[in-house]
Amino acid sequence: MPPEPRTAIATVCLSGTLEDKLAAAAAAGFDGVELFENDLVVSPSSPAEIRRRCVGLGLSIDLYQPFRDFEAVPPERHTANLRRAARKFDVMAELGTDTVLVCSSVSPEAIDDDELAAEQLHALAELAATRGMRIAYEALAWGRHVSGYEHAWRIVRRAAHPALGVCLDSFHILSKGHDPAPIRAIPGEKIFFLQLADAPTLPMDVLPWSRHHRLFPGQGDFDLTAFTGHVLAAGYRGPLSLEVFNDVFRQADPRPAAVDALRSLLALKESLGVLELPAAPALTGHAFAEVVTDPGAGSVLAPLGFARTGVHRTKPVELWEQGDARVVVNEGGAAHGAVGAVALASTDPARSARRAEALLAPVLPRVRGPREADLASVEAPDGTQVFLCGDDWRDDFTPTGETAAGAGIFGIDHVALTQPFDHFEEAALFYRSVFGLTPSPVAEFAAPFGLVRSRSVAAGEVRLTLDAAVVRRGEWAPAVPEPQHVAFACTDALAAAAAMRAAGAPLLDIPGNYYADLDARLDLPPGRLDALQERSVLYDRDAHGEFLHFYTALAGARVFFEVVQRIGGYRGFGVANAPVRMAAHRARRHAAPPVKTPA
Amino acid sequence: MPPEPRTAIATVCLSGTLEDKLAAAAAAGFDGVELFENDLVVSPSSPAEIRRRCVGLGLSIDLYQPFRDFEAVPPERHTANLRRAARKFDVMAELGTDTVLVCSSVSPEAIDDDELAAEQLHALAELAATRGMRIAYEALAWGRHVSGYEHAWRIVRRAAHPALGVCLDSFHILSKGHDPAPIRAIPGEKIFFLQLADAPTLPMDVLPWSRHHRLFPGQGDFDLTAFTGHVLAAGYRGPLSLEVFNDVFRQADPRPAAVDALRSLLALKESLGVLELPAAPALTGHAFAEVVTDPGAGSVLAPLGFARTGVHRTKPVELWEQGDARVVVNEGGAAHGAVGAVALASTDPARSARRAEALLAPVLPRVRGPREADLASVEAPDGTQVFLCGDDWRDDFTPTGETAAGAGIFGIDHVALTQPFDHFEEAALFYRSVFGLTPSPVAEFAAPFGLVRSRSVAAGEVRLTLDAAVVRRGEWAPAVPEPQHVAFACTDALAAAAAMRAAGAPLLDIPGNYYADLDARLDLPPGRLDALQERSVLYDRDAHGEFLHFYTALAGARVFFEVVQRIGGYRGFGVANAPVRMAAHRARRHAAPPVKTPA
Repeated sequence: MPPEPRTAIATVCLSGTLEDKLAAAAAAGFDGVELFENDLVVSPSSPAEIRRRCVGLGLSIDLYQPFRDFEAVPPERHTANLRRAARKFDVMAELGTDTVLVCSSVSPEAIDDDELAAEQLHALAELAATRGMRIAYEALAWGRHVSGYEHAWRIVRRAAHPALGVCLDSFHILSKGHDPAPIRAIPGEKIFFLQLADAPTLPMDVLPWSRHHRLFPGQGDFDLTAFTGHVLAAGYRGPLSLEVFNDVFRQADPRPAAVDALRSLLALKESLGVLELPAAPALTGHAFAEVVTDPGAGSVLAPLGFARTGVHRTKPVELWEQGDARVVVNEGGAAHGAVGAVALASTDPARSARRAEALLAPVLPRVRGPREADLASVEAPDGTQVFLCGDDWRDDFTPTGETAAGAGIFGIDHVALTQPFDHFEEAALFYRSVFGLTPSPVAEFAAPFGLVRSRSVAAGEVRLTLDAAVVRRGEWAPAVPEPQHVAFACTDALAAAAAMRAAGAPLLDIPGNYYADLDARLDLPPGRLDALQERSVLYDRDAHGEFLHFYTALAGARVFFEVVQRIGGYRGFGVANAPVRMAAHRARRHAAPPVKTPA
Repeated sequence: MPPEPRTAIATVCLSGTLEDKLAAAAAAGFDGVELFENDLVVSPSSPAEIRRRCVGLGLSIDLYQPFRDFEAVPPERHTANLRRAARKFDVMAELGTDTVLVCSSVSPEAIDDDELAAEQLHALAELAATRGMRIAYEALAWGRHVSGYEHAWRIVRRAAHPALGVCLDSFHILSKGHDPAPIRAIPGEKIFFLQLADAPTLPMDVLPWSRHHRLFPGQGDFDLTAFTGHVLAAGYRGPLSLEVFNDVFRQADPRPAAVDALRSLLALKESLGVLELPAAPALTGHAFAEVVTDPGAGSVLAPLGFARTGVHRTKPVELWEQGDARVVVNEGGAAHGAVGAVALASTDPARSARRAEALLAPVLPRVRGPREADLASVEAPDGTQVFLCGDDWRDDFTPTGETAAGAGIFGIDHVALTQPFDHFEEAALFYRSVFGLTPSPVAEFAAPFGLVRSRSVAAGEVRLTLDAAVVRRGEWAPAVPEPQHVAFACTDALAAAAAMRAAGAPLLDIPGNYYADLDARLDLPPGRLDALQERSVLYDRDAHGEFLHFYTALAGARVFFEVVQRIGGYRGFGVANAPVRMAAHRARRHAAPPVKTPA
């Protein structure tokens, strides 16, 4: 296995003061940081104090950045630029760091002249060398004359100074669609620094894309494994360093953000074959889901055909079952009930837990009574507990002897985990890297109170959906956080809905307008449409099959149930119908939310 | 004066259920609505109930929208499309509305054949006519084959059916840079509908630009007066109707949003000369600013050279003065002090108030004691009171006889009103339309806890700055809402800072790192740099002049003071230095904000 690279993070990735950022990077376990100049400028700590703080935290300062608009300018500006650089070298000396990032000029003063650029960078490198420092020259994707890494490397080669090399930034290269393979031809010792950022594919100019929407590796659409592979193959031995400008991360708690950031690098290293982690065991399905409901609300499961089959030996929770659908109901829960835990059946729970721990997922301590199963329990970014179970978890429950009447439910289809605004990107990377689930592309839909982003993470019979608001909700938009739910799979949704309604299940009524629209759009056979409408069953279809589903009312402030039937190879989750459900839940709950006047 | 057009708003502009949206549109004073199909589909109210509700609210339903992917398809799809349309005509009949928006097809099935498009639209119009309905055909900017309004009009002309006309949408036309002048050549009776939206210039594809970033007229960069002028000149006599897709408005309280929306149309009508409003009187300066501070914190003004010159005759507030800088201090205020009121000197306060009222600004009732001045008082979107004053407002205060020692302050330079997240766009339109202030372009800067948008609204000596977070702040990022402040103008900031510090003013200390960076960037004369640093005075310059400024510590949880010196014609507000101030305030306030674990 090749040597494992060190890890670093640019302070600009994280929110807070410089002191907050350094503490968060160190706590997550980074080896070093890139010090972003503006973070230092606003800090009351002197460079020498920052140096001591980093030493105390076990962080190296691997790069000082950025130094802008240097190369290929008229002589008097060049003189001023060298003076400006000298002042920054003073700061770097106090910080105890030796490499500065010089990004290609965007100045209207810059001249399109590689020879002049090389000459002036040579002079800068010479000045740096006298201070024991070095220059990492980077092509910005929007640089005025130099905007590609091969161009930057040609200038560096022409300058031919040992204190001058290139800095490679995955965003600047991959956002422009430049081929990263020729990086292999750059001598590794001339690659002075490597900055990594992922990004979603967005139809916008590269500058605002870069400044607002970068993501940590594995969260976007770039192939960072291939990219980084080229850089390592070239012989680069410096740190893998993250430089991510993201509007959401910039205002989110830096401590979980730093953990998430480092996790992205660990997963990247694993994919590069420079870090060995316990492989993710196969997950064979949903062992159970735990819901936290209002007192008494667990009984909504009875008219759905479930039986209360067990009582936990030591905890105040009950097991409800129907077919392979198993729900642990916690009625003593918080005021705002929700899905408390997702329990996944693992072929090797202990190894699942070791992998989670290696990928910085908090493995939760668990009070284990005598005869209780050893469930591994991991905390997801949104606070949901994820249990990894073998076969023995049911021994924790004393059987009641009750058996389910049954209403056609045979298992858990998926669990819908609405996400806090700050954790949407983080969550997908978490489920992918820790458990090996595959994220779907992000869909967006208009709900009554604002836009919602939605994606699933799935593998085989394990399916989770992750939704979050596009804009963090304020005082007007209700249901923050939105309710979560467990969706059961059934064989015949129309029959199930009829049986459950007859048994008194509080199913959600769907407006006639929905069926009028369905009729206009899809021209279903008349009997079919009537059957759906009569039972308030919703309908969707895709290229692979059909989807019938219906919902219960809220069983507590934040949790409800869904029953779904997949016909053929339907791959979705009925997202197009989510706004109908949201409006119907709201209509049932209250006539109108509190309204604030403009004051 | 030409006839005043009616006003309408598409329900998709506003947040909430359909019932919420209709109530908000009616309360604001709109004449009608465009009913967005998805709002109806999720509503528990039947179309007939919605019709009755609209009648009760005094709203007409001017348009049903959208009907997609209709024209120029193979015959079997055309038959299905007519069936789909017939179902929608049923709904429209129940709603009692007669016009449907058909937008140009984006379907891969659509054929690039104007004759076929005209033929099929003719068939649709024929079907509509049998129901007493009509079709408004609109070119989407991203339509597959029809993406320009002139193209849509050619097809409509070719179809030659009295129940078929065009719908013009300012966004689809202006976003593509199409010339709107040829609209004048379209017969007014063939323009069946007019949709208005503004937008900021954004470097992105037109589809996401349209779906996320539209604004109400006057909030963006489009010339909607010229655009709408062409449409009215063509003879269009339908409503001016707003169709704005905006991520922020979609989740904001619909009631103030609807008021803001209607205000945008009133201002547009005024600019078109179809509505006469009381003209905005000239504002000659800041009469005073009222700040709400912690008890005792008002005395911070004393070491700044102010004297307590008056005590209000009936209210527990005091007047502090220095030169023409006047501050009313309200120490009995809320727990979270801030700028409570901005008082602007108007050449005609009563007319200022009449204009404000005509533009839907809440004119606040004011308890007026005997001998008290008749201040007009208007509430801004963020809750700030704006007083319009003549010369007599000082009669409300009993003079104390104290006189200011003075420290070089001669007036109020500007008042900085940080804005709630939902009201940033609204605020600029409010100050522009109601008071005739000119908004600056929006700048964006990176503050320690997230990105901030900033703009000013100004006219002569009246200057306000409006800042808001780019992403609504959550639990981590502190100071929500951010503190506000009053900035005083002085003749010599260095002398003032020295004198005030000597007098014990709690001035903010600026880190040495800031001056090291200033030195590197600007190469100021050495004596100058030392003088700035010694006194913690910040520095900026632009093409027109220089700016020296310094801050006090917070005088309460949410308010502080700034002292500024403009040299030459400097036009800005030192925004580049705002992050330094924010970090320094934070460093003074507490060592660290509460930190949440990932849970």
